[in-house]
Amino acid sequence: MEFRDVVEARRMVRNYTGAPVAAESLARILDAARRTPSAGNTQGQSFVVVTSESGRRRIAELAGESDYVERGFDPWISRAGALVVVCVSEAAYHQRYSEADKTDAEGNEIEWPIPFWWVDAGAAMMAILYGAVDEGLAAGFLGIHSIADLSAELGIPPEVTPIGIVTIGHPAPDRRSGSLDRGKRPIDEVIRYESWHPE
Amino acid sequence: MEFRDVVEARRMVRNYTGAPVAAESLARILDAARRTPSAGNTQGQSFVVVTSESGRRRIAELAGESDYVERGFDPWISRAGALVVVCVSEAAYHQRYSEADKTDAEGNEIEWPIPFWWVDAGAAMMAILYGAVDEGLAAGFLGIHSIADLSAELGIPPEVTPIGIVTIGHPAPDRRSGSLDRGKRPIDEVIRYESWHPE
Repeated sequence: MEFRDVVEARRMVRNYTGAPVAAESLARILDAARRTPSAGNTQGQSFVVVTSESGRRRIAELAGESDYVERGFDPWISRAGALVVVCVSEAAYHQRYSEADKTDAEGNEIEWPIPFWWVDAGAAMMAILYGAVDEGLAAGFLGIHSIADLSAELGIPPEVTPIGIVTIGHPAPDRRSGSLDRGKRPIDEVIRYESWHPE
Repeated sequence: MEFRDVVEARRMVRNYTGAPVAAESLARILDAARRTPSAGNTQGQSFVVVTSESGRRRIAELAGESDYVERGFDPWISRAGALVVVCVSEAAYHQRYSEADKTDAEGNEIEWPIPFWWVDAGAAMMAILYGAVDEGLAAGFLGIHSIADLSAELGIPPEVTPIGIVTIGHPAPDRRSGSLDRGKRPIDEVIRYESWHPE
């Protein structure tokens, strides 16, 4: 698909048919994720892909799918053909920035003005969301309250943090998120020219 | 451009011709940024676009362009036709998650398992990087050490944090980043199936 069409078609989809995601589609989506940038080329992002029915069910349970269903949503996590758990290792960034080309004159790691590991995880998440649409699929994203439980379920080591789950699948009619009723922020608040308060 | 071509063509470019970026291109790039998702549809991301020569020069100075040049890079910040400062308001997320549909039974804000404001800022950054390539342009990204100075320069209010600067312009030959010498992490470390340590 054209990039512009991907941008315009993309939205968070919270229901799927349950049909599997083709392996070739998944591979292309993950290739896009893998090509996203990272501070100092740390490449601190990793992805755990879950497609087995039992695995998807267990993650759906951990993510509180039954609560979603109680609140009137569809069982959108277990019905997604593929779940991609987006992970990032803060430790990898500290390690990278203790290398000679990144330390200061005294050999110290920089003080991070921004925790770029989360930023880079977000970049990877975005690539996956776009990549799914490009494959004619749909995607959603959810955070998870118990990161420890998700890590235990998937065997994710302590130095790696799963930031959330991208659901990917063949879209089915879904219930619109109540958050959308908030509408869009006025464009001149979101995009500003030359300074925050243009003269 | 096709999304796949954007994904494959995109790389961090650290030199530009100095030619201006067409207003229509910039508008489409920023439209993609504005359409990126945010937790609870908070829409905490904002963008300050700097295209004036004097503004670009001042930001380049704040970003330490002279240091880059001393290290053998081109003056890639001042030479970019447009700078997009990606900002996010953590406060906006706390405000959104104190609304009735997001608080717990006792009316309390959730404990954030992940600081999703940084994740959402990263998603917006990624959209801008892709959007630039889609317009036949190139883009780069840099963090900045003194966020306070950048905020002062642009009049960004204290509750909003500029996470860094996307440089956008017509590409010129650039010096390859030394970070690329690290190579790519092995794909089976980056992408894992069913669990971190597949059986």
